[in-house]
Amino acid sequence: MLSAPSIQLLLDELERMPGVGAKSAQRIAYWLLNSERSTAERLAQAIVEVKDRVHFCPQCFNYAEGELCIICASSQRDRSTICVVAEPRDIPPIERTGAFEGLYHVLGGELSPLSGIGPDELRVSELMKRLGDDSVNEVILATNSNVEGETTASYLARLIRPLGVKVTRLASGLPVGGELEYADEVTLGRAIESRREL
Amino acid sequence: MLSAPSIQLLLDELERMPGVGAKSAQRIAYWLLNSERSTAERLAQAIVEVKDRVHFCPQCFNYAEGELCIICASSQRDRSTICVVAEPRDIPPIERTGAFEGLYHVLGGELSPLSGIGPDELRVSELMKRLGDDSVNEVILATNSNVEGETTASYLARLIRPLGVKVTRLASGLPVGGELEYADEVTLGRAIESRREL
Repeated sequence: MLSAPSIQLLLDELERMPGVGAKSAQRIAYWLLNSERSTAERLAQAIVEVKDRVHFCPQCFNYAEGELCIICASSQRDRSTICVVAEPRDIPPIERTGAFEGLYHVLGGELSPLSGIGPDELRVSELMKRLGDDSVNEVILATNSNVEGETTASYLARLIRPLGVKVTRLASGLPVGGELEYADEVTLGRAIESRREL
Repeated sequence: MLSAPSIQLLLDELERMPGVGAKSAQRIAYWLLNSERSTAERLAQAIVEVKDRVHFCPQCFNYAEGELCIICASSQRDRSTICVVAEPRDIPPIERTGAFEGLYHVLGGELSPLSGIGPDELRVSELMKRLGDDSVNEVILATNSNVEGETTASYLARLIRPLGVKVTRLASGLPVGGELEYADEVTLGRAIESRREL
């Protein structure tokens, strides 16, 4: 053992965090040792409090601190459009675009028969219940653009369309600012198929 | 604000850590939200306990949990050689080489006239006191291989040589301008083996 036991313990715990390897853990540990005690206390408290205070929003299943999540609780949002995502972590990137003003619905995963994840493991019935009243007129399927995400989107589209609700899917194509030379064939093929008239 | 207040607070605290930007902080925060409460508690506790338990070793000024640091407290170490480093974080990389079995002395920085760091700001007098008895016969100057480190090494060499103690410096092999903390084991091990007398 190279370090005092409590330093070694801290290194072990830090290395559990995603994207933190041995060197980063050591850098963070020495930074903590050099910091004010209050810095370490604030960090430790923030880590524990997030577990105490945060629960799932009973309406959309995003992380929430109040009764509803801050999006469902907002009076500014357009309640006629619901954007369906796999996980709560998919919401902040969409919010940052400023291009969406509706509500969300978090499935809690994507269909994956190989991993035994079917519709019952996801919040599909909760979504259908939300579509039961007539206030929603569009559902945007913003699941990932991989096999599981596409499967989930197709499944939900088939389920929702009979309700007479408009069902849309995020466009796929070239990333803005991206170069054609470096695009993969599948993405480029999709971009050609769904070309738009100028 | 995109997230619940306690998530936003956690993100702010995580982003203070070195090497953690907005995206890494978000990844870690969602990982914590998905983890068992016990995982978060263990991490928070490790962060606070390291501040409670760790102090400076009164002999070498490495981080210590017992009365002395684990290196000074060990009966396996060769007490006739002292390796002088700038910071406690420089010790684990040297230990990992397995090429050094003596004791350490942590200066707490390096000479830097521009930043107003002179010998009085470092633990130089404490080092000289350790060299006062006759048990030490070699001092290895393992300060960084940059300007401040070389300046510090020259200064200490001039100070120590009159005591009749052999003074050595890590061999070149360290990339010039590089910092000890980031050197790989093989390079650093080679540098220790071929240390040269000043």
